[in-house]
Amino acid sequence: MTAAAPRRRGRPSRTDSAAGPAARDRILAAAGEEFSERGYEKTSMRGIAKSADVDPALVHHYFGTKEQVFEAAVQGAFAPVLEAPGSITDGPMDGVGERLARFFFGVWEAPGTRRALLAILRSAVTNETAATVFRRLVFTQVLSRVAGQLDRPDAELRAELAAAQLVGVAMLRYVIKVEPLASEDAELLVARVAPVVQEHLTGP
Amino acid sequence: MTAAAPRRRGRPSRTDSAAGPAARDRILAAAGEEFSERGYEKTSMRGIAKSADVDPALVHHYFGTKEQVFEAAVQGAFAPVLEAPGSITDGPMDGVGERLARFFFGVWEAPGTRRALLAILRSAVTNETAATVFRRLVFTQVLSRVAGQLDRPDAELRAELAAAQLVGVAMLRYVIKVEPLASEDAELLVARVAPVVQEHLTGP
Repeated sequence: MTAAAPRRRGRPSRTDSAAGPAARDRILAAAGEEFSERGYEKTSMRGIAKSADVDPALVHHYFGTKEQVFEAAVQGAFAPVLEAPGSITDGPMDGVGERLARFFFGVWEAPGTRRALLAILRSAVTNETAATVFRRLVFTQVLSRVAGQLDRPDAELRAELAAAQLVGVAMLRYVIKVEPLASEDAELLVARVAPVVQEHLTGP
Repeated sequence: MTAAAPRRRGRPSRTDSAAGPAARDRILAAAGEEFSERGYEKTSMRGIAKSADVDPALVHHYFGTKEQVFEAAVQGAFAPVLEAPGSITDGPMDGVGERLARFFFGVWEAPGTRRALLAILRSAVTNETAATVFRRLVFTQVLSRVAGQLDRPDAELRAELAAAQLVGVAMLRYVIKVEPLASEDAELLVARVAPVVQEHLTGP
């Protein structure tokens, strides 16, 4: 353990070596850790600043409120998800169910992403502000793009029912850990779930 | 507000007017309220006792540990669910998807049951002990009975994938409140979800 550097007060100057992109990234990484460990409610701006070894004013400077830090942390964790809809909706529509299911299990099976997703899910279930961020990012950005490809009047509801099947599997497999679902091979689950996702999206 | 009755210490005697079935029921109701309001982690045996206006020793006397009080409270909230599998699995198997979906939305649409279910879901997502209780009650008691009717080697996985569709809809409709799913008519959702539940349970 090294002694903490002396903290700076007030708005950081541009020449302040503690500020800049490196500090911003460090704050974001620390925020991700804190939200994962403690959930939204128990995480404080002060705790994030301490964990990133910066002055709390710098956290406010870069991100604003706790809600905005959370949104930035979620956006970081969801970056692969948010960048994916193009590849999911590209290609023939009769394969969209499998592409979506395969992508979903892909991000959940990777330990790093899973940890972030668990933190977001736990926060959204127990806190209204976190639920709003989750809704805005996942549903407005991801599902609306999938729905946009369907060109049907009930496209949004279809996309949400498909998402419900996937979110439900994530809940029972990764959070509640129900057996045999928790230990089942992910590839077998893709095969079981893809037709349901497909049916919700493009079925009669 | 009336002044609290003086608290009694030690193991309650059988002639103690604060004990007996009425006190047990009062403790259980108070536990349900406390777990709903605060979630598993923030609820204390002392808080439950205070809310039920009994000595904390009486809570221990009737239920044992906090985990056991939680299990009793969940069992109370889930009583209609736990008593239902007979009626869900009775009748022709080609209607089991619709019976299960209709029953599921029935308990979630009733405000009293919904509140208890939300409390259980929130607790199970954020606390490992609560997740264990949830797993034991819902999955061991409800799903194993549904699976038992299927008479197929992968019956448990089938029941869990069907449950995942339902749990996912509950998450997005009642917890995260994604639109249009959150405001959609429950009867329409039964019609959308029943074929998926049926397919998971009895499909090829």
